[in-house]
Amino acid sequence: MDAIISLCKRRGFAFQSSEIYGGLGGFFDYGPLGCALKKNIKDFWWREMVQLRENVVGLDSSVIGGSKMWEASGHVAGFSDPMVDCRESGMRYRADQLFFSPVAISGKTICHLSILDSPQMEEDALAMARSLLKKRGESAAPDKLRLRPIAEATAEELRQIPSPATGTIGALTAPRAFNLMFRTSIGAVSDASATAYLRPETAQGIFVNFQNVLASSRLKLPFGIGQIGKAFRNEITPRNFLFRMREFEQMELEYFIDPDADWCRIHGEWVESRLAWYRSIGIGDKFLGKEVHAQEKLAHYARACTDITFRYPFGVCELEGIAARGDFDLRCHSAASGKALDYFDGDKHFMPHVIEPSAGVDRVFLAVLCAAYGEDEIGGERRTLLRLDPKIAPVKVAVLPLLKNRNDLLQLSREIFLKLRRRWNAVWDSSGAIGRRYRRMDEIGTPLAVTVDFESLENGSVTMRFRDSAEQVRLSIGELESAIGNLVDWK
Amino acid sequence: MDAIISLCKRRGFAFQSSEIYGGLGGFFDYGPLGCALKKNIKDFWWREMVQLRENVVGLDSSVIGGSKMWEASGHVAGFSDPMVDCRESGMRYRADQLFFSPVAISGKTICHLSILDSPQMEEDALAMARSLLKKRGESAAPDKLRLRPIAEATAEELRQIPSPATGTIGALTAPRAFNLMFRTSIGAVSDASATAYLRPETAQGIFVNFQNVLASSRLKLPFGIGQIGKAFRNEITPRNFLFRMREFEQMELEYFIDPDADWCRIHGEWVESRLAWYRSIGIGDKFLGKEVHAQEKLAHYARACTDITFRYPFGVCELEGIAARGDFDLRCHSAASGKALDYFDGDKHFMPHVIEPSAGVDRVFLAVLCAAYGEDEIGGERRTLLRLDPKIAPVKVAVLPLLKNRNDLLQLSREIFLKLRRRWNAVWDSSGAIGRRYRRMDEIGTPLAVTVDFESLENGSVTMRFRDSAEQVRLSIGELESAIGNLVDWK
Repeated sequence: MDAIISLCKRRGFAFQSSEIYGGLGGFFDYGPLGCALKKNIKDFWWREMVQLRENVVGLDSSVIGGSKMWEASGHVAGFSDPMVDCRESGMRYRADQLFFSPVAISGKTICHLSILDSPQMEEDALAMARSLLKKRGESAAPDKLRLRPIAEATAEELRQIPSPATGTIGALTAPRAFNLMFRTSIGAVSDASATAYLRPETAQGIFVNFQNVLASSRLKLPFGIGQIGKAFRNEITPRNFLFRMREFEQMELEYFIDPDADWCRIHGEWVESRLAWYRSIGIGDKFLGKEVHAQEKLAHYARACTDITFRYPFGVCELEGIAARGDFDLRCHSAASGKALDYFDGDKHFMPHVIEPSAGVDRVFLAVLCAAYGEDEIGGERRTLLRLDPKIAPVKVAVLPLLKNRNDLLQLSREIFLKLRRRWNAVWDSSGAIGRRYRRMDEIGTPLAVTVDFESLENGSVTMRFRDSAEQVRLSIGELESAIGNLVDWK
Repeated sequence: MDAIISLCKRRGFAFQSSEIYGGLGGFFDYGPLGCALKKNIKDFWWREMVQLRENVVGLDSSVIGGSKMWEASGHVAGFSDPMVDCRESGMRYRADQLFFSPVAISGKTICHLSILDSPQMEEDALAMARSLLKKRGESAAPDKLRLRPIAEATAEELRQIPSPATGTIGALTAPRAFNLMFRTSIGAVSDASATAYLRPETAQGIFVNFQNVLASSRLKLPFGIGQIGKAFRNEITPRNFLFRMREFEQMELEYFIDPDADWCRIHGEWVESRLAWYRSIGIGDKFLGKEVHAQEKLAHYARACTDITFRYPFGVCELEGIAARGDFDLRCHSAASGKALDYFDGDKHFMPHVIEPSAGVDRVFLAVLCAAYGEDEIGGERRTLLRLDPKIAPVKVAVLPLLKNRNDLLQLSREIFLKLRRRWNAVWDSSGAIGRRYRRMDEIGTPLAVTVDFESLENGSVTMRFRDSAEQVRLSIGELESAIGNLVDWK
């Protein structure tokens, strides 16, 4: 993971936001190459999910939404994490990430400890227990600790648990709901009516526009409305680089179906279709997984949810969730707005049900990098490379004159470059030894490099080098465009 | 303008945000066609401004920025409008839009009036003056009114001016600065250190990443960093549909140059280059204008600024501003962060100066629609059409079977459609008379319609109809792709 973060910074894929001001936790800026890779991922999703599907259309709704909408959707009341405050320091902790245990000797409780979740929490807790006992003059070893989440603490236990920030006993509050939406205020007058929120998901913009889209298009069930855009969640503990950010981007589709349709089959088809999409951008099966949510763990509005997971260096985590949400959302917005959000099919009218494949752009971006990252040896030299699928690689082709100090090589290579870049994102690079230039391109995942050498000047042929194998073929300049197109164009 | 707004809603270009909840002022959602048109505008800007320029790279920075950054940029202190409050009603007015005048008879002031700016403000004020005098039992006609902006009122005058909301004399405050940034708070603890703002422009994200981009790329001066993204301004009076919104999108480029370079010439070149870009997306010269900001009206950091204007139905307004900003921004961020934001050129190091072409996506979108909107008569029938440049038209080609009830026509037209849509955004439409289908396509600006008729079944030819002239040519199916490509592809 460190190698990937370092590559991202070194080669301009992603930077910590506001880095010169010490950084802003949970926010990242995409640099030149990251911005290109991210755009390719989004554009390819859009092509496959919206443009190539006759019954899917796009939408681009606003980020800021009024409080009525977010109350109706259930986000004002329900989109929250239980949090525990330290009254003394003002620090706040997610209740599911803070653990406690009594510290006892031979069954007699001496004191309590609190500790934050981590892979080595058990060992750390034991060391902490020993130190607490030592401070109290107890030399015996503690009994086996029984770590439990703070949410399970009784009021009596809370009064005995120390704050992880200050160590002061009884400083923690009971868990309270903390809303994860960023709040702001619209207009000049700051009263409650002006309260608004940054969307924590793009989906609700689709539901509130359901009738507008229906009325302005000629769609018939089943149909989908897709959207790509920023979403914001005020996470308490953003972490894992681009994985859990406070500002992120989503690619969501709401696929509306007849309530009598076989939603279970349609849901399954979407899961398979989305898995196929991930494979098509170069994420191998060894990284991908499916996690079916247990019935008892589903959100109250969901009938089923399957996560597509990715094996990140930090663990297997959700890449995309595909939920069967019934008519929960349309029903909420219809009730709150007093507007009928019905679909008319001849005499029948009803609220459609919905299947929602919802992916995180930044998570896909990170997954793509993790899957593509590699180090190997070519001709006795170590190299770092990104085996990015050519479909999404930020740069498709590099054009390189063999030598820098030969005008004829420079000129011919410039001509080829200027032609190619009208069709593809291309770079021209003349500086440094040719091997070093190849490795620079390998490192950013450029699938093809075209080299103009002395033979080119004689017979109009060039070499084309393939990133992964480092093999080269020779072909004529006239064949170049179709050869590149075959390898990198979306079919 | 009403015709365009109505077309936007009817055909799914743009809807008022949160419409089912009564609408959110200053926010709009883009529907299926609007979303496609907007994406084409952005993608074409990106291609011409970033991809096809070897010395320009892209960036995608976060929307939320910490207070340190916005303090350094001058936005916390200076990005504000002077506002006047009515203490009684809580209403707030932009000081430059609220006017007042004494109401006098034969040189003797009887009372004062206040009135909001509008095209018929003079007449309305006169009627108001008469009514005020009548209420006071004065039957004589008032002297000529002398309307002045409220910002020019003395403290003594303010005590005599009635509130436009309630009529209460002396209820207005003196003008006060009202910051236009949307404020929010990051993390769980709501203290001052957590204050953050939604960016009112994308540009600052470029300046704070200046060193990151420089270090990770191989750019040499002059070079540019481009960015497209959402920006947010808490406008007091959003208006004119998509023109002045609270949430909008920008396409900005910061073009860094040597401080000793001839900035005046480079600035002029950018103005011409941007005008050419607008022409290239189909905006005719009769709509375009240039407005050079007078030296004394420039912002303190600007050396020159030229607006590119568009003749909207509601007036000639700014489409894009092209400013020469010197090194103001880098200097501010360097001073506030303590980081050297210098460029090294051999032994020399200095802060580059910058030229900034900054365009509003939504304004361009609206301009494109206004320029393209037309009504004419074809074969004795009125039609509405959008003469959109094929480069940015949301749908490039419609494939239409002549009749709906002939399987052979349906089948062949489906085959053609399925092939074409892999290259272009295409629609297939079989419902209704062919003339009506053509008009549906004209109305959304589809430049080409391919019709499959009985001759197609015989000899494999189809007709291709051109939107603007409604003329048709016949060509073979094999020629179709290259004919369409010639007309709609980006060259």
